[in-house]
Amino acid sequence: MVRVNENYLKLPGSYLFSTIAKKVNAYTEENPGKQIIRLGIGDVTQPIAPAIVEGLQQAVEEMGRAETFHGYAPDLGYGFLRGTIAEQDYKARGCSVEADEIFISDGAKSDCGNIQEIFHESCRIAVCDPVYPVYVDSNVMAGRTGEYDEKTGKWSRVIYMPCTAENGFVPELPTEIPDLIYLCVPNNPTGTTLTRDQLKVWVDYANENGAVILYDAAYEAYISEDDVPHSIFEVEGANTCAIEFRSFSKNAGFTGVRLGFTVVPKELIRQGVSLHSLWARRHGTKFNGAPYIVQKAAMAVYSPEGKSQLKEQISYYMRNARIIYEGLREAGLEVFGGINAPYIWLKVPGGMSSWEFFDLLLNEAGVVGTPGSGFGPSGEGYFRLTAFGTYENTVEAVERVKKMPYLRK
Amino acid sequence: MVRVNENYLKLPGSYLFSTIAKKVNAYTEENPGKQIIRLGIGDVTQPIAPAIVEGLQQAVEEMGRAETFHGYAPDLGYGFLRGTIAEQDYKARGCSVEADEIFISDGAKSDCGNIQEIFHESCRIAVCDPVYPVYVDSNVMAGRTGEYDEKTGKWSRVIYMPCTAENGFVPELPTEIPDLIYLCVPNNPTGTTLTRDQLKVWVDYANENGAVILYDAAYEAYISEDDVPHSIFEVEGANTCAIEFRSFSKNAGFTGVRLGFTVVPKELIRQGVSLHSLWARRHGTKFNGAPYIVQKAAMAVYSPEGKSQLKEQISYYMRNARIIYEGLREAGLEVFGGINAPYIWLKVPGGMSSWEFFDLLLNEAGVVGTPGSGFGPSGEGYFRLTAFGTYENTVEAVERVKKMPYLRK
Repeated sequence: MVRVNENYLKLPGSYLFSTIAKKVNAYTEENPGKQIIRLGIGDVTQPIAPAIVEGLQQAVEEMGRAETFHGYAPDLGYGFLRGTIAEQDYKARGCSVEADEIFISDGAKSDCGNIQEIFHESCRIAVCDPVYPVYVDSNVMAGRTGEYDEKTGKWSRVIYMPCTAENGFVPELPTEIPDLIYLCVPNNPTGTTLTRDQLKVWVDYANENGAVILYDAAYEAYISEDDVPHSIFEVEGANTCAIEFRSFSKNAGFTGVRLGFTVVPKELIRQGVSLHSLWARRHGTKFNGAPYIVQKAAMAVYSPEGKSQLKEQISYYMRNARIIYEGLREAGLEVFGGINAPYIWLKVPGGMSSWEFFDLLLNEAGVVGTPGSGFGPSGEGYFRLTAFGTYENTVEAVERVKKMPYLRK
Repeated sequence: MVRVNENYLKLPGSYLFSTIAKKVNAYTEENPGKQIIRLGIGDVTQPIAPAIVEGLQQAVEEMGRAETFHGYAPDLGYGFLRGTIAEQDYKARGCSVEADEIFISDGAKSDCGNIQEIFHESCRIAVCDPVYPVYVDSNVMAGRTGEYDEKTGKWSRVIYMPCTAENGFVPELPTEIPDLIYLCVPNNPTGTTLTRDQLKVWVDYANENGAVILYDAAYEAYISEDDVPHSIFEVEGANTCAIEFRSFSKNAGFTGVRLGFTVVPKELIRQGVSLHSLWARRHGTKFNGAPYIVQKAAMAVYSPEGKSQLKEQISYYMRNARIIYEGLREAGLEVFGGINAPYIWLKVPGGMSSWEFFDLLLNEAGVVGTPGSGFGPSGEGYFRLTAFGTYENTVEAVERVKKMPYLRK
């Protein structure tokens, strides 16, 4: 008789976005004339850049001719892309990352979710709180997280590292030593980052304790400050303790195109075993390569035209971020993030809960955001807005917030 | 201190294709003038059909314009594709499969590898022997397979169901009752199938014993005989015991485009838990949807032009299969498969091993195939050739085999 993976049954229902949808629907019915502005979801809105569209079209044409058709891609990615990434994303920044340490995939979400498989089920994980929920959820499914406490919203075997206004959103070294440390930098949802010096503390800590840092750098393209590293491999010592996840979703608008990659350095050894070889085996056994047309198109991300077009795209979103950041401050709110990331994280005013502020913002401004409590217990009392809307909507949303009766009191 | 997933260390090295490459390289160096014909790997060679290329191009164009840009796809797939599959692949064949029981993915290999996650680690698996190695390997990684015996090539907790010429390649019901039964029909590598009546035996057996059949139908488009079902859901009772994997790789040449889907019926319940909801949770947590452009292009697989173009493509490969099948029989070999599948499975002559025949075929004919022993212990003494080459190469390969000195003795 089949038994199911009972760890799945421990997962609390994920009602965040469905609750949002319900509330928005109810509001729309009651206010048929009012146009809602959605700054809730981290999905891009700008179309794929012309250089990338051209890359896709050329690759599609190749697939239609026998002489240039491409069947199965190499499991770990095409050499042309791995080599280009090694040169432009790493060597150009002084990182020691070779092409064969780069694993191309269908996206950072898959890699962030699957990476825990190569580790023992006894490993203890540490996560920033609040953070992208996939790190914890994928470990719940694997049975690493103990029991869930509904009151605190915490798992008994997870080490939470609160990132709040009080500590400047910089996680403190935990007292219990974790095995796997998830760092999302720039952080989703807080939009905050770590400087080179702050990250060095973590690299040293991991090396000293034999831990592994799982470094999610999906938002690195939005970094504007010089002392914030784009890759953990800019920090000395990272090659013996870190795995890095990167995405084309946010720097090139690939949320619906799907492409990402993971760097596992060959120097990263635990129990005498190369994590590089374990991940290669995982990739080779359960994945059949990313589409040729998408890998080919990604080359345009690194071409001069592509770079210039994407720089513009990111400036577009970061202008939105500035508008939200400054507008909300003018409205008297306490605001974080938005400088090295497309997320603005605000402290909910007046001691309200995240959900109470959600209702207020919807009812008084017709703006939809995401309650901070959806990202972890320490997200309670905060709220996320994203810069991924259109410029026009973003300006309008901020104007509406400024006019909210609650804030003008 | 991090511990690794030690189950990975139990996996024997996968030397099959690297050994083949080494032998082929050595042969090429010694015989510089001789052109090698490769009928070893199950990858397609015909270009993407014009209707699908057009679908891709249109979708790429949509992605380049703000009004028609698509960001994150729904995790489980676009409704337009799920609905079309439900109608054309299932309802048209009398199967009771609804759109929301279909999960779109980046390919059947991912799904076949990931499906075991939703089951308990104590589950015992049964596999046809020989078969596609992903089923066993993904369970080794999850710790379900016990210990490996190098002498027999078997794992202590895996139930092997030999499929050989002696039993007409029809697996017998195992004496020990498995929890998860992997069936690959039409089979890779033997190219053989199960009739509706033969499959019914398995469905009844699974329902009686509370087992789940994991049914890999990646090659269904090659079925030519009427009494061979294209889907397990054509068999009464399958909706309460089976999960089906389907691929666009072999019916539409998507090996390098990447798309597949999995059907998990809502009626499939174990321990009171819906496997449909478990798979939805897995998909939603660790996968971010298949590319819009690929899902859109897949619609052309179901259009009248697409269907007619793909029918031609499959006829092309199946003509190759017939040429190999008949040619090898004429050469005095015992041959199987090739009627409902693009694989020809031959009994190695003269008591040779699979690898001995590999060397003979390479040296006497300059033809590369795959040793049957690479697919499981009962594959020893057999050999796989694929119909995915070009027509010209296939004809030439068969002519060369017929002239092999060994076979003319």
